[in-house]
Amino acid sequence: RINADRLWDSLMEMAQIGPGIAGGNNRQTLTDEDGEGRRLFQTWCEEAGLIMGVDQMGTMFARREGTDPEALPVYVGSHLDTQPTGGKFDGVLGVLGGLEVIRSLNDLGIKTKHPIVVTNWTNEEGARFAPAMLASGVFAGVHEQDWAYARTDAKGKVFGQELERIGWKGDEPVGQRKMHAFFELHIEQGPILEDEDYDIGVVTHGQGLKWLQVTLTGKEAHTGSTPMFKRRNAGLGMARVTELVHEVAMDYQPDAVGAVGHMEVYPNSRNIIAGRTVFTIDIRSPEKEVLDTMDARIREGIETICDALDIQFAIEQVGHFDPVTFDENCVKAVRDAAERLGYSHRDIVSGAGHDACWINRVAPTAMIFCPCVDGLSHNEAEEISKEWAGAGCDVLFHAVVETAQI
Amino acid sequence: RINADRLWDSLMEMAQIGPGIAGGNNRQTLTDEDGEGRRLFQTWCEEAGLIMGVDQMGTMFARREGTDPEALPVYVGSHLDTQPTGGKFDGVLGVLGGLEVIRSLNDLGIKTKHPIVVTNWTNEEGARFAPAMLASGVFAGVHEQDWAYARTDAKGKVFGQELERIGWKGDEPVGQRKMHAFFELHIEQGPILEDEDYDIGVVTHGQGLKWLQVTLTGKEAHTGSTPMFKRRNAGLGMARVTELVHEVAMDYQPDAVGAVGHMEVYPNSRNIIAGRTVFTIDIRSPEKEVLDTMDARIREGIETICDALDIQFAIEQVGHFDPVTFDENCVKAVRDAAERLGYSHRDIVSGAGHDACWINRVAPTAMIFCPCVDGLSHNEAEEISKEWAGAGCDVLFHAVVETAQI
Ligand SMILES: NC(=O)NCCC(=O)O
Ligand SMILES: NC(=O)NCCC(=O)O
Repeated sequence: RINADRLWDSLMEMAQIGPGIAGGNNRQTLTDEDGEGRRLFQTWCEEAGLIMGVDQMGTMFARREGTDPEALPVYVGSHLDTQPTGGKFDGVLGVLGGLEVIRSLNDLGIKTKHPIVVTNWTNEEGARFAPAMLASGVFAGVHEQDWAYARTDAKGKVFGQELERIGWKGDEPVGQRKMHAFFELHIEQGPILEDEDYDIGVVTHGQGLKWLQVTLTGKEAHTGSTPMFKRRNAGLGMARVTELVHEVAMDYQPDAVGAVGHMEVYPNSRNIIAGRTVFTIDIRSPEKEVLDTMDARIREGIETICDALDIQFAIEQVGHFDPVTFDENCVKAVRDAAERLGYSHRDIVSGAGHDACWINRVAPTAMIFCPCVDGLSHNEAEEISKEWAGAGCDVLFHAVVETAQI
Repeated sequence: RINADRLWDSLMEMAQIGPGIAGGNNRQTLTDEDGEGRRLFQTWCEEAGLIMGVDQMGTMFARREGTDPEALPVYVGSHLDTQPTGGKFDGVLGVLGGLEVIRSLNDLGIKTKHPIVVTNWTNEEGARFAPAMLASGVFAGVHEQDWAYARTDAKGKVFGQELERIGWKGDEPVGQRKMHAFFELHIEQGPILEDEDYDIGVVTHGQGLKWLQVTLTGKEAHTGSTPMFKRRNAGLGMARVTELVHEVAMDYQPDAVGAVGHMEVYPNSRNIIAGRTVFTIDIRSPEKEVLDTMDARIREGIETICDALDIQFAIEQVGHFDPVTFDENCVKAVRDAAERLGYSHRDIVSGAGHDACWINRVAPTAMIFCPCVDGLSHNEAEEISKEWAGAGCDVLFHAVVETAQI
């Protein structure tokens, strides 16, 4: 068993960096706080005797040697970046859980055949720079590195420049590492495990996602003196598309979700009809067909809405991944570990996207979920118990060690 | 007749200050640009031999003496502040039109019985600090001065402090001036005069307005892993209220308008369901009963919407004025002047709020409208012709001089 107290202490220490305003964290990717979090993680890795490599996307790889010089490493990890109003565990548990696996191996003096590499993937959240899971996406060959470097945030800052600015642009080419397997421990971010009283979610699949960034162009005009029939209201258009996304998602219950969480209004004045709005539609489903149908219905609906309001639209897909089926053997390793350790468990589909979803394309991959209070995540109030974290990390430990011996 | 070329040149010179990004202006109230615009206007007033007074709300009063020491002044003016993406004429035409009246009187060596005072009211637009027509509202006793001083902008800057910062907080107590009459020349900001090919709008009434600032509180949560039935989506709530406002306004056509032009979303991340939204509803009608009914229906609708989505709401009225009926004699002076000068004219209701709407409560008041291209205002592309401006200013000149002699 791992040391749950030590894991918890490390989680709490990391949460000191980039504190939020309501008990959570704001450690968005490539901010000074992200840099500080990385340095703390690096220090811990060095103390545990690991050798750090950093690739050109800023992803950190901390390696513990194995006994077989020919054996490919088992990778384990997640991400240290957070949402602007994020929790203390989303991503962080997977990275520090990986570190705790190493610390426990060191304590027990266990040598594994395969090396083990603890990984911190850059920009998993996609909050500051879309899309999410950016560095793991480049690693898996889904995105071009130059394209990733050119991503901009809301203030126009550029990903590549920000990566250099915080001093974490490494030399290592991205995606050349070969993996024996990859394991990611994460909080569920949904309510199922807690509601059904399970310790462990054995993640068999991941939902697919599309992010559609929509720009509506109407005409700025006076809210008081412009007759209703003369209006070309881009704000009203955004409202109707927001409702449309909700209705389409409701139609495919429980196999779909959909929302608009990001909205900008120009010029955003009380007495000006919005001339332009920019917002992002987030739709997901574990079924590729459902996702594609939703996408088509929404595009069609946007056209109808804009025709009726005499406004123009442009749609840019700023994020996309297909539904994922994780590796049978890795999933079995997780399930067996939970079973062996006596933790209650069920198979589960990930509602969120994870670095594991991309890595699954280039290496045998699986994920372990532990419950979180009220299913709440992407909220500073995100909470888990030390016991839940410990159980998840125990399962990670056993799955990783078993895989690293064969 | 006034000198339309000189008026136009002054309009174009003022438009150099606080240029927008698309040919218009961003000279929002109490910014450095507002200060600069005020200084230019002050210089012009001094050159025209006027004596400047500034009250504690920063309103500028530039006086030309009359022949009768007992006679109350005739006031004329509007505002120099603009929307963030405003035009070159909204407000500015009324102030510089007033100055052109003085310059023409000087040219012609005409002495009037009553003094004439050209006025620049502070914060008419209400874009930076709600409500609109703030200084004229304090002048008319509608708002307390301390309450006005405490208004804050989106960045938390305070009205009273910003007024001092730009150096335009005068000593004169607000609202003590007595007026023989007040005339405001303004662009229509709507399409009627142009569509029906009139030179002049004789403004008999003004629409009433309510601004309701709504805060919806739901729960921040993950867009991917939160089941649809668990969501408390404040963004969806805002969308539904935006649609509601539109539908209610459509129900009272053509006697009502309604829109939501100001919207804020927190935390505004692509993969976070909005936990909080703040937005302002703008509803207007020339009929007080209609306005009150709309207000009631919207409040009821917000409750229903929020109940259905399991979100909380708070509504704060941040702006309000009742429909206005302008002074019979002043309106007649405007109509007679247009008639005498041979300009085509029609009676019209103002769709926008104006300083004249408040001043009408404490002095006989009327307004003159001139057309604007495509009825467009609160848009950098706002446009009028030199001829339209000249005609409006001619009518202002005649109405003011006639009123200043009796
Ligand atoms: N796990 C997680 O929150 N990832 C961010 C990408 C997503 O929105 O699913
Ligand atoms: N005239 C004008 O645009 N005033 C601003 C106040 C309003 O929104 O009506």
